[in-house]
Amino acid sequence: MRDVAIIGVGQTEVGEHWDVSLRHLALGALQAAMTDAGVAQTDALYVGNMLAGELTGQEHLGALVADFAGLRGVEAFKVEAACGSGAAALRLGYVAVAGGLANIVVVVGVEKMTDTLGPDTTSALAMAADADYEAAQGISFVALNALLMRRYMHEHGYAHHDFAPFAVNAHRNGSHNPYAMFQFPVSADRFAQAPMICDPINLLDSSPICDGAAAVVLAPAEAARAFSAAPVRITASAVGTDTLAIHDRRDPLVLDGAVLSTQRAYEQASVGPQEIDLFELHDAFSIMAALSLEAAGFAERGQGLRVALDGEIELGGRVPITTMGGLKARGHPVGATGVYQIVEVVQQLRGLAGSNQIPNARVGMAQNIGGSGATVITHILERME
Amino acid sequence: MRDVAIIGVGQTEVGEHWDVSLRHLALGALQAAMTDAGVAQTDALYVGNMLAGELTGQEHLGALVADFAGLRGVEAFKVEAACGSGAAALRLGYVAVAGGLANIVVVVGVEKMTDTLGPDTTSALAMAADADYEAAQGISFVALNALLMRRYMHEHGYAHHDFAPFAVNAHRNGSHNPYAMFQFPVSADRFAQAPMICDPINLLDSSPICDGAAAVVLAPAEAARAFSAAPVRITASAVGTDTLAIHDRRDPLVLDGAVLSTQRAYEQASVGPQEIDLFELHDAFSIMAALSLEAAGFAERGQGLRVALDGEIELGGRVPITTMGGLKARGHPVGATGVYQIVEVVQQLRGLAGSNQIPNARVGMAQNIGGSGATVITHILERME
Repeated sequence: MRDVAIIGVGQTEVGEHWDVSLRHLALGALQAAMTDAGVAQTDALYVGNMLAGELTGQEHLGALVADFAGLRGVEAFKVEAACGSGAAALRLGYVAVAGGLANIVVVVGVEKMTDTLGPDTTSALAMAADADYEAAQGISFVALNALLMRRYMHEHGYAHHDFAPFAVNAHRNGSHNPYAMFQFPVSADRFAQAPMICDPINLLDSSPICDGAAAVVLAPAEAARAFSAAPVRITASAVGTDTLAIHDRRDPLVLDGAVLSTQRAYEQASVGPQEIDLFELHDAFSIMAALSLEAAGFAERGQGLRVALDGEIELGGRVPITTMGGLKARGHPVGATGVYQIVEVVQQLRGLAGSNQIPNARVGMAQNIGGSGATVITHILERME
Repeated sequence: MRDVAIIGVGQTEVGEHWDVSLRHLALGALQAAMTDAGVAQTDALYVGNMLAGELTGQEHLGALVADFAGLRGVEAFKVEAACGSGAAALRLGYVAVAGGLANIVVVVGVEKMTDTLGPDTTSALAMAADADYEAAQGISFVALNALLMRRYMHEHGYAHHDFAPFAVNAHRNGSHNPYAMFQFPVSADRFAQAPMICDPINLLDSSPICDGAAAVVLAPAEAARAFSAAPVRITASAVGTDTLAIHDRRDPLVLDGAVLSTQRAYEQASVGPQEIDLFELHDAFSIMAALSLEAAGFAERGQGLRVALDGEIELGGRVPITTMGGLKARGHPVGATGVYQIVEVVQQLRGLAGSNQIPNARVGMAQNIGGSGATVITHILERME
């Protein structure tokens, strides 16, 4: 096994791109990343995507993107793990390079959620949950998260407005990210008055439905300097899974998959929570941000929200999260999100995060979650000195 | 890089299983393979599947199958490459074990095509083709193959009845495979009289829509004897891609992706066509069988059909194909097919193919194709002496 580095990153602006097709989104991110890395060829291309079949009538994205990007002939597959598809594709790219089966791998995460055919997007997103035992009851994905949030408030004695810091922090950071869907701040008052989506989840608890693509290029760390002046080492790539249906879990308020995934990652990278300079967590809903902070060891059970209330999630805090806007403000094109998170950690470690820069960021963690915690993929990245 | 062996295989009977869900199909194959290998745990689970989202409203099959199989916590993803999804999942399992990132990997291919919701299966299958430039014109997947077949007949001067040997051979072999969907022979006369599906493709040129699952367990070859008395070594695992849309190809009658994939596989395994004792090719339609024989070096352009007409594809022939029934008679549950092919090659190499046994089979090749040749995945397996 050899060390793996990220030698190039690329992203497209997240938003409702009614006039841009899935293949053009993917191409934009891929070309930006390959240009950044200075490579014209790749040994393999892994595409993270969840819903292209359901929403745009197109499967077979590996061959599609390879073809459209002029990489015809190359090994190319689509990887799917619901909203964790992006990091799943990265994980498999990492495996190929770490094991010596490939030298250069391009990983693209892409999702096209506007201008769709077939089922509505809410129905499609419910395919991340258990079709037979959750979705079949008529429960949507946001409803599952609403049940978790309500239980969290009940058990730990929080009010809804206590969740405001997650949206406020994400939007403050997103307002300085030119790739973010929502480049404006929101106040705690505006959070409190946001329209209800699925009680107690309101509009500002929720990440948006949107389009986007992000990409990274991987290479062996020992060769990375030949491509990039600022390569970033992947010091951990770990996966943990849990039951697909929430009702099968020993404790619905503990993301066991995230606990497992994070522990494995800490062990691989020989670090603990105290070494993490920034944490790009999976804030698809604000309740998931709270639960993720707890599962990753930044707070005890029930205290994840306290971390936010104490301001510790902000850029200057103990554990800065969603530093470029997160799923909430940068946007959550589901299969692309895991790759956006990686691109943003790389920006921070390269010192290119602009006014959102974490001073002297050295170690960053990204965690991408599929479903309500059923697949959790954690990567730890470190600046190569 | 280390050698990889298959230490266990499992499969379910292919058919229209209206009363069996996708997760039960996957479980059946997985348990059979893990029992065969004598393992109770795995480091990773890769699930090959194309259409669970579109047809059964369920994505996120990695976590689903891991959960349902009692493997909660394990790394688990779905891999998709249209009808090549099964071999794509195997390819990624191979990469993980060969590179030393995992010791035991379970690969499951599963597809549930009956009892579906959402789009009809024909529309869903068209997602293997180019949604914007092929399917959007109203052309189905069988229609694309019909155009290829018509062109082949026109250019090379064959009649439709010349394709009969593919169906006759597949059904003869399938009639002795207890896992095959069609366990009965067909005659050349019956082929000639079969109902037309999409001129010139008739019912017996076509593989059926069906349900099924197959699984294999991988381990480092050096450890394989500890698990299996008859392990099989993977001596090649290779991928080649081509344009997604057929109209973009330099020659629609040459599967360049298959040429590339096969050449890479021969090179890896240090063998040529003459060393291959049996070839499980992707006979989704009989035209694909002819084109595959040519791309893999068993015939010149236009002569693949001649190989069949000369009886060389039969069990005692120069290049036995579809030895357990192939896609045509065993059935083609799309995302599972690539793993069924592997299971069948392993049966042959273990000498357990019953009355379909190729005497002293030592080297077998399996080739799984996504779309009309856009993704081609080739594995060569050898008996471990």
